[in-house]
Amino acid sequence: MANIAFFGLGNMGASMAKNLVKANFVVTVYDLVGSQVQLLAEAGATPSSSIPEAVASADVVISMLPAGKHVDSLYFGANGVLDNIADNALFIDCSTIESKTAINIGEKLRSCGHRFIDAPVSGGVAGAAAGNLTFIVGGNKTDFDDAQVYLQAMGKNIFLAGNIGAGQVAKICNNMLLAVLMAGTSEALQMGIDNGLDPKVMSDIMLQSSGRNWTLELYNPCPDVMPNVPSSNQYQGGFLVDLMNKDLALAMSTAAENQSVVPLGKLAQSMFQMHGNAGNGKLDFSSIFKAYKHN
Amino acid sequence: MANIAFFGLGNMGASMAKNLVKANFVVTVYDLVGSQVQLLAEAGATPSSSIPEAVASADVVISMLPAGKHVDSLYFGANGVLDNIADNALFIDCSTIESKTAINIGEKLRSCGHRFIDAPVSGGVAGAAAGNLTFIVGGNKTDFDDAQVYLQAMGKNIFLAGNIGAGQVAKICNNMLLAVLMAGTSEALQMGIDNGLDPKVMSDIMLQSSGRNWTLELYNPCPDVMPNVPSSNQYQGGFLVDLMNKDLALAMSTAAENQSVVPLGKLAQSMFQMHGNAGNGKLDFSSIFKAYKHN
Amino acid sequence: MANIAFFGLGNMGASMAKNLVKANFVVTVYDLVGSQVQLLAEAGATPSSSIPEAVASADVVISMLPAGKHVDSLYFGANGVLDNIADNALFIDCSTIESKTAINIGEKLRSCGHRFIDAPVSGGVAGAAAGNLTFIVGGNKTDFDDAQVYLQAMGKNIFLAGNIGAGQVAKICNNMLLAVLMAGTSEALQMGIDNGLDPKVMSDIMLQSSGRNWTLELYNPCPDVMPNVPSSNQYQGGFLVDLMNKDLALAMSTAAENQSVVPLGKLAQSMFQMHGNAGNGKLDFSSIFKAYKHN
Amino acid sequence: MANIAFFGLGNMGASMAKNLVKANFVVTVYDLVGSQVQLLAEAGATPSSSIPEAVASADVVISMLPAGKHVDSLYFGANGVLDNIADNALFIDCSTIESKTAINIGEKLRSCGHRFIDAPVSGGVAGAAAGNLTFIVGGNKTDFDDAQVYLQAMGKNIFLAGNIGAGQVAKICNNMLLAVLMAGTSEALQMGIDNGLDPKVMSDIMLQSSGRNWTLELYNPCPDVMPNVPSSNQYQGGFLVDLMNKDLALAMSTAAENQSVVPLGKLAQSMFQMHGNAGNGKLDFSSIFKAYKHN
Repeated sequence: MANIAFFGLGNMGASMAKNLVKANFVVTVYDLVGSQVQLLAEAGATPSSSIPEAVASADVVISMLPAGKHVDSLYFGANGVLDNIADNALFIDCSTIESKTAINIGEKLRSCGHRFIDAPVSGGVAGAAAGNLTFIVGGNKTDFDDAQVYLQAMGKNIFLAGNIGAGQVAKICNNMLLAVLMAGTSEALQMGIDNGLDPKVMSDIMLQSSGRNWTLELYNPCPDVMPNVPSSNQYQGGFLVDLMNKDLALAMSTAAENQSVVPLGKLAQSMFQMHGNAGNGKLDFSSIFKAYKHN
Repeated sequence: MANIAFFGLGNMGASMAKNLVKANFVVTVYDLVGSQVQLLAEAGATPSSSIPEAVASADVVISMLPAGKHVDSLYFGANGVLDNIADNALFIDCSTIESKTAINIGEKLRSCGHRFIDAPVSGGVAGAAAGNLTFIVGGNKTDFDDAQVYLQAMGKNIFLAGNIGAGQVAKICNNMLLAVLMAGTSEALQMGIDNGLDPKVMSDIMLQSSGRNWTLELYNPCPDVMPNVPSSNQYQGGFLVDLMNKDLALAMSTAAENQSVVPLGKLAQSMFQMHGNAGNGKLDFSSIFKAYKHN
Repeated sequence: MANIAFFGLGNMGASMAKNLVKANFVVTVYDLVGSQVQLLAEAGATPSSSIPEAVASADVVISMLPAGKHVDSLYFGANGVLDNIADNALFIDCSTIESKTAINIGEKLRSCGHRFIDAPVSGGVAGAAAGNLTFIVGGNKTDFDDAQVYLQAMGKNIFLAGNIGAGQVAKICNNMLLAVLMAGTSEALQMGIDNGLDPKVMSDIMLQSSGRNWTLELYNPCPDVMPNVPSSNQYQGGFLVDLMNKDLALAMSTAAENQSVVPLGKLAQSMFQMHGNAGNGKLDFSSIFKAYKHN
Repeated sequence: MANIAFFGLGNMGASMAKNLVKANFVVTVYDLVGSQVQLLAEAGATPSSSIPEAVASADVVISMLPAGKHVDSLYFGANGVLDNIADNALFIDCSTIESKTAINIGEKLRSCGHRFIDAPVSGGVAGAAAGNLTFIVGGNKTDFDDAQVYLQAMGKNIFLAGNIGAGQVAKICNNMLLAVLMAGTSEALQMGIDNGLDPKVMSDIMLQSSGRNWTLELYNPCPDVMPNVPSSNQYQGGFLVDLMNKDLALAMSTAAENQSVVPLGKLAQSMFQMHGNAGNGKLDFSSIFKAYKHN
């Protein structure tokens, strides 16, 4: 039976760790915030108060952290994971970070006799709680297969996108496209409204036409077209504008890697940046719909 | 039994008229191109050689013409339809034209004792031939209900978008969004490819993620990801870049009506304009994918 | 000596008419707002209370109105100028209108034995008051030469851009470019500020480098870089965002005429539209600088 | 008398080093390409065959290299400049690199007892040859003053933009704005041409109006409007599209540093990227004008 060391008990990570516990894995947890460690201990995880303690008997490391520098520091910092873990561990990083950072991390771990996959998630806080996250993985097939048992405890759809770093690339391409879909759908709906159409009727029509997309299916940005989505709840909850902006910054960094041409992605980023700067950073990202409204 | 006068026997119109004949309607046809009239005569329609002759005993008029000025001239020109048709006819214009032109036409017809719906189509030449076009209708409910029997002979999905002109608005909002989806999906796919991903794998992942949209489902722009789509056939056939540009010009006109804010729609238009100017006007519109390629 | 009928006594027109009076022309004025007519009468113009009265002895007509429809109605409406003026009058329209409207007006006037130039202005309310407006004229050389004496009474730089309509095209191309310069300069300045630079130092450097442009020379959008510009006075006065949006709408209409490709112009329009919708319509257009600020 | 070690003898660097020699400085040169070292030796410089040899008696280091990684490696690599130079040297880096790299370099040099300014140039190969480059400097006032004597031997306008890194920021903001000016001016000119205007007449008008900018003054992108500019010589020479794309990539990196909002800059980048990918990378950057032409 595997012994998992889990790092990063934020909104997402805490739920993911709980789901591993529920699936009867032995999970030792660590976070800089002691109260979060305590919370997980109450849920059945083994608490730890330092990185060395957390990995003392681990053969699997799972991390869920804000950015690449945190992952790098956790793994390779002084008295970090690498200094304290037994050989041939499987590292699963679920953070959303730059793909080139993931590639660097993977190379360093392999050269030290460890295994690594990047496994960024999609599905948000609700998906983490419900255990139906999507994982988009980069790594080799063997490591991917070995990681399945852990990922399935936390999620539902699990994809292998390619080699190490490919998980990050695929996720960020998807989220850049999502930003374009959300902004583009908002524009189209508002243009219809400006010309006298009912957004509900229009959404129905486009859903069955060539304008169909995920936002119209599950996440309509216009208030009161769909129940139980952020737009019908003052854009509370959901996927915050600030987080979309974090992902779009990563998308721009990915685009810069190989001079990819992404004019619509860049414009969507500018729209979400201005929207965030206008004070909407803590609203759901479908609130971009408001940016198209007349005064 | 209704007596239909059908005007405009181009690629779309000819197929639509044939489907009306197949459904056992009495259809009198007229077009400036005599050979097209002859073609329909062979298919069972009644040929006519002038507008007055075409509408002599008509109580339904169906038109499928390139632009608003043609419809206006057909209906209201000297010795046109209005001068020659019996009272209380039902006019169904299936052309894609400016919504304000549709509204003007509707007002003029009503003031002369006739009835009008705008019923632009989606589905292209293939949909017209197969009789499964989508009709997006603007008009009142009674006229919409009365038109159903004719529209169903030519199409499958039939929507009432709102009052007269609303059909045009809904169609053009949808097609502007389609342009954004196609360009945005192309960008995301090419950025993935630039970073080493397989477009097929990436398409599969995005289809099951929040980037899902009509182009990934049915019309992938990247060659050889899907069989039987234009991208896998050198971008032949389908919906031409020139026609997308015609629709985007109408979208910009619709946006100008009420100062709608459509930055992504405008940028998509610029992309398709440049793509057409680069010599790709007669390719399918999914060929915009090529605009993102590295040299 | 010419007898001028002057129509349109708004902020711009009133000052222009006054300058004609100062130059000792015989000027009969008309406006729907009686108090404005009275104001001009006090300044030495001959008041009139109807179009026929205004043109009774006129051989030159000068108009300064909000949009093409007003000019069209003034000239060609029932009991309008055309119905009441003597033969071979010189019409000078200083309004900013669609070039195709100007061309139509010119054709109609010529076919009735009159002469026409379109002569839109640049320089704003201050330029109108000071009598140093710029006139950008479309028309033939003879009419242009004959109009010089009147235009010089109201302005300083007087250009012949081409045939009738060309004045409107040149003005609107210039103003679309101005929108791009103002937004682009704002972006560059704010990016420098974001990275620790002093906007004054940066403006000095760019003024002597390849980023030099009219906005840096005379109209810096960053507060307190230049004295006596709107940005240093809470963006009061100057050229209103609403008016820039009017011009950008005309620019888009001009672009649509011949499918011109203007991606930056379109994006600048979207920026100014959103800026206006956010409640800044009555501020000077250099206030677009605020749209780039961080929160 | 200062003893200068000069590194990087490409098109720019070779001319700059020659001008230092002409100004009677003692200049020791080094480059990986031996023939370039030989060329400078013939012009009066002291050749060297290694970094240690080049800096043996240097108290001033001037570098002109393609990217930040080259500067970093030159200064701090094994047996690089830092390992071999005497204390308290003045380092002047004329390369265009990321500002954060310049800041890092400056901090490292200062901590080792040296002095540093970043001094990127504007003016191109012609300016380097003629000795009238513009230098945009980041650093403290003392170092800036001490560097004047060397910079004046190579250039004409010398600006202090702020602290270390500020030279890079100011240059890159300027060049991003230049890209916007060039693309925006091209759009405006082509829209005028599309509507029947003479580009020469239009350029004259805009030069004296609010559309005035550096490209209209000195570098008109439309062929045959100005003599002796790249557009009138098949876009040969000048500032290559590839180099503008290098600068725009740096601009995007600078924008990402502090989440600057630069929609027009981003769109200009996309335009120049597509233009380069279409095979125009080795043309002058004013060739972007061609991207707006009708087919």
